Amino acid sequence: MRLRNVRNATTKIEESNFLIKEYEKFKGNFNRLFENNNELHIEIGTGKGDFIINSAKNNPKINYIGIEKYDSVLVRAIEKVENEKISNLRFIKMDATNIESVFFKEVDVLYLNFSDPWPKKRHTERRLTSTTFLKKYDNIFKADKKIIIKTDNRKLFEFSLIELVNYGYLIENISLDLYKDDLKDNIPTEYEKKFANMGNNIYQLSVKKN
Amino acid sequence: MRLRNVRNATTKIEESNFLIKEYEKFKGNFNRLFENNNELHIEIGTGKGDFIINSAKNNPKINYIGIEKYDSVLVRAIEKVENEKISNLRFIKMDATNIESVFFKEVDVLYLNFSDPWPKKRHTERRLTSTTFLKKYDNIFKADKKIIIKTDNRKLFEFSLIELVNYGYLIENISLDLYKDDLKDNIPTEYEKKFANMGNNIYQLSVKKN
Repeated sequence: MRLRNVRNATTKIEESNFLIKEYEKFKGNFNRLFENNNELHIEIGTGKGDFIINSAKNNPKINYIGIEKYDSVLVRAIEKVENEKISNLRFIKMDATNIESVFFKEVDVLYLNFSDPWPKKRHTERRLTSTTFLKKYDNIFKADKKIIIKTDNRKLFEFSLIELVNYGYLIENISLDLYKDDLKDNIPTEYEKKFANMGNNIYQLSVKKN
Repeated sequence: MRLRNVRNATTKIEESNFLIKEYEKFKGNFNRLFENNNELHIEIGTGKGDFIINSAKNNPKINYIGIEKYDSVLVRAIEKVENEKISNLRFIKMDATNIESVFFKEVDVLYLNFSDPWPKKRHTERRLTSTTFLKKYDNIFKADKKIIIKTDNRKLFEFSLIELVNYGYLIENISLDLYKDDLKDNIPTEYEKKFANMGNNIYQLSVKKN
């Protein structure tokens, strides 16, 4: 994602009630933060927030945490909700490499939307669907693991399929051309809207593992 | 595939040395027919034969059997080789539903090229990658199972991925746009050449199971 400097972004983010600052102290107990035992769905690389914000609004009985490392986009997500009260939505500012230090056996669904493809071979392990990351996710999920992916990057999608399947995930659902299928439950990201309008193929995959 | 009447097709096929007529008597022992212990690769739905004929010519150390139920296309395959001597190639005329009565623990690789998509839900079990067929294949493969699929039918490809993966197959290779990838080892079918030239997406998948 192209990043722009946003004046005072860091301050604005830090001051928002939607930001979980001391996230490490909730590890294994995010249900206490939300004050209920509803499902916890997280998105890594939440960008400007459309997907997670609309998911939270559409599903008040599910708790959502959007994870984003870049101030310049996270501030856009924060701005979208700053005058609203959405009790089932929070954000964490962090690099996903440290995901295991934040969550422990409490995540129900992980969303990876239009993740960085890291096309160079030497960067394979940085891809969020590499075995390196799948091992981390094992520790954050409850017993049942579920990952839902959307991307317009063919090579990342092919790589993700191979990694996930060969790691033991089964396929719940797959679309190799999402915008030609039934879209009634689809919640688009900002990036997705733009690239689908340009005629790019959008790939979607839902996998699960016990 | 659209079928045309071919005058005397049945006679021409029956008279060819490339046809294995009494195939059931070789069950479990096709190495005796080929008089060697080379790998056995089979194609179900061999059509007009380009794929299996060129595979056999390119790989003389592998035995190939093309299976086709329709005289009108099988005769075209037979005509292509009738004046040649290709000792590692044979054809069987049969319906794949009976595949278990022909092979037993002796197939190394199964090719499914541009199989009938059987798009209607009530015909699901007729698709050559349905669990119904995967169970049959278990008995024809040696210990290691390998299936290689090509198709331009998105829905059949999505279905096949789900069926194969959830049946226990792992992914060796996948291409969601074969003609944008490295094609150096690709052997096209007649159908494939035509539809790739029209700009259709060609999907390819290679899976294995122990």
